[in-house]
Amino acid sequence: MALKLYLDRMSQPSRAILTFCKVNGIEFEEVKIELAKLQNYSPEYAEVNPMKQVPAIVHGEFKLFESHAILIYLASAFSGVADHWYPADLQKRAKIHSVLDWHHSNLRRGSATYIFNTTIALAFGQPLNLEAAAEGEKILIASLAKIESFWLQDDGPFLLGNSQPSIADLSMACEVMQLEVVDTKDRDRILGPRKRILKWVEDTKNATAPYFEEIHSIIYPAKEKLQKLKTMAAKKEPQSTGEPA
Amino acid sequence: MALKLYLDRMSQPSRAILTFCKVNGIEFEEVKIELAKLQNYSPEYAEVNPMKQVPAIVHGEFKLFESHAILIYLASAFSGVADHWYPADLQKRAKIHSVLDWHHSNLRRGSATYIFNTTIALAFGQPLNLEAAAEGEKILIASLAKIESFWLQDDGPFLLGNSQPSIADLSMACEVMQLEVVDTKDRDRILGPRKRILKWVEDTKNATAPYFEEIHSIIYPAKEKLQKLKTMAAKKEPQSTGEPA
Repeated sequence: MALKLYLDRMSQPSRAILTFCKVNGIEFEEVKIELAKLQNYSPEYAEVNPMKQVPAIVHGEFKLFESHAILIYLASAFSGVADHWYPADLQKRAKIHSVLDWHHSNLRRGSATYIFNTTIALAFGQPLNLEAAAEGEKILIASLAKIESFWLQDDGPFLLGNSQPSIADLSMACEVMQLEVVDTKDRDRILGPRKRILKWVEDTKNATAPYFEEIHSIIYPAKEKLQKLKTMAAKKEPQSTGEPA
Repeated sequence: MALKLYLDRMSQPSRAILTFCKVNGIEFEEVKIELAKLQNYSPEYAEVNPMKQVPAIVHGEFKLFESHAILIYLASAFSGVADHWYPADLQKRAKIHSVLDWHHSNLRRGSATYIFNTTIALAFGQPLNLEAAAEGEKILIASLAKIESFWLQDDGPFLLGNSQPSIADLSMACEVMQLEVVDTKDRDRILGPRKRILKWVEDTKNATAPYFEEIHSIIYPAKEKLQKLKTMAAKKEPQSTGEPA
């Protein structure tokens, strides 16, 4: 049964799914949906995902969106996926669900809000919003602290103290990697002190070599372009603070 | 193996778990953690849930938080839970995960932000924040529209067109019910036009009778108290608009 992945490699959950498929030898066709070109708003794509977001998959006749639901489905539907990605044991599996659920309202929310409003908005022709960015940064910083103090444990290098990565490691490590697109000084200020997180991302990269690194290579040229847009925007007009004009 | 549920019935995900256990005849001990009394910040509760939120469960030695993870765990760990709550079929299950994931960043985010900043903040001695409430309302309204146009389908009364409710119906219907605590005119403005949603909540209530209704009875006296606090706050000082003083 053919599997199509509808992705934008600039989207962190898209990268998680792509990495997962490559590491697990799952065959697929990659269909590029470029968010910055608004390709997710085409009528054809609305047939795949009516929410008009990436990632989404079509497996035979079956359509699915939401990256965590997709990761769980792929780990369950394809034979040959090692148990550590999404354990059959009920309690181990429940802990993975707990991390994935927590991610939505914490790391994901903080990181996506911060990165969009400091940087990525420009790729969509929108102004930066420093007030919204500050709100996002607060949630991001608190989330990174919780990852270090709670989700990463001493028993093993991966989330929940596991000795091998799960789909939760992929989802959250791809989110942390998105911080590579912001100003280097901001990235260093936020991630620099987080030695445990940097080690965990490195461990995730190594456990999924060479795919994680290959798939993330898109970020660095994108960062250059975004930084140029930023320089141009700074010359043109003062940044929005979220106040009405 | 003893099951303890750590809940505040004023929390919508707590009510979803409580309803689920009662409907499915799962035996448990209810441990009340009153958020308005900050009982979730006690050192004892930090041992149960280091994130200091409700709901959480302890099943024998096993601790778990995040309400969706808990619902999935309970549906999987206890025999006698009918398949429609959390289907064994991979694709049906994947669709339930998709709704549950979508909920976090849409209905839940919009509803919780709107309700907290228009009403519930007062129970925590915090000022209302009309700017944050307006942001929440936008997400809430868009989410309700998507539930009507996409998640509720013609095939059956429940989410995804199902003929019987799943854990996703419970989670999202309990969220919609939380709107009963806001001003009646606001509740009517937001929910009044949503006939399909009102019918679905009613169907969920009927499918889980008498528990859903019994468990939600806490909301109406709480609304009266909150409205009194609101009247007092309005007399005392102007509401915050989120601007620095």
